[in-house]
Amino acid sequence: MPHIELDNALPGIAGLMNYRPETGRPLTELTEVLLRGPSTLSRGERELIATHVSELNQCKFCAGSHAAFAAAQLPEDYQHTAKLMALIDIATAVTESGRAVTAELIAKARENGATDLEVHDTVLIAAMFCAANRYVDGLATWAPDDPEAYKRMADKIVPHGYPSIIGIS
Amino acid sequence: MPHIELDNALPGIAGLMNYRPETGRPLTELTEVLLRGPSTLSRGERELIATHVSELNQCKFCAGSHAAFAAAQLPEDYQHTAKLMALIDIATAVTESGRAVTAELIAKARENGATDLEVHDTVLIAAMFCAANRYVDGLATWAPDDPEAYKRMADKIVPHGYPSIIGIS
Repeated sequence: MPHIELDNALPGIAGLMNYRPETGRPLTELTEVLLRGPSTLSRGERELIATHVSELNQCKFCAGSHAAFAAAQLPEDYQHTAKLMALIDIATAVTESGRAVTAELIAKARENGATDLEVHDTVLIAAMFCAANRYVDGLATWAPDDPEAYKRMADKIVPHGYPSIIGIS
Repeated sequence: MPHIELDNALPGIAGLMNYRPETGRPLTELTEVLLRGPSTLSRGERELIATHVSELNQCKFCAGSHAAFAAAQLPEDYQHTAKLMALIDIATAVTESGRAVTAELIAKARENGATDLEVHDTVLIAAMFCAANRYVDGLATWAPDDPEAYKRMADKIVPHGYPSIIGIS
């Protein structure tokens, strides 16, 4: 049961964003730009970074939902590139602390072809999921057990984007 | 020196938000609602929560700037209320992990008069500063040593708000 009384029965961050749309709206807009806006990283790759951080933080709702969003947007034969592996190493460090991101981790990403903007977005995606994971679990929101529930979320988010979360019920 | 080449010499998150205004804009809008929008917590009290989390995460830029914003907006004889102390305990837990926020911490805040919305906003402020601290230090931005520099930031933020950060240089 959530720590506060929400005015809806939605799971995870969807329940919180609809409870407080004043904060939910800019949060969805930021998520939309970061995970789905124009980028040299594919939408599926960015969802993998979000999923990785959510798994490290053991956030069931965020890990389950973003894993479904990644799976829905990556080719079936997708293999992590060396560049994505290096960016994921940066995201792992960010999850621990900003100060854990070393010049060596950045150099490794660059050697594998990462641009400054890709490094920037990776750090911000990882940082924002450290926030989302804490928001979702800090208020003890509920998370579906059924993997099908996360696939149904992907069926909405993939075609309609993150701002479509606000206003559902 | 920052890990990536910014197109400006601004410190901390100001440099990052102006480097990438597509993400900077919704970030400032969210910060504006959370720290300065209508609330039963004063602007100064909300800045104290932000400062506390930034100190726990040892983020020099965020702790220095938000301490200055708190000082500029609290009465000289300000004393922490029992309610704010209980909310700060929740913020401390969020900094560790969302799952560290116990029903006991929430009950303590309620006993001291905290509303559901105040609990919600405290958790989101703490979560967002876990993100901001990681963003600022994960990209190795610079932070002024001189306390006067943070007071000058307060002279801009207090009257003009967070969205005024974008577009300065």
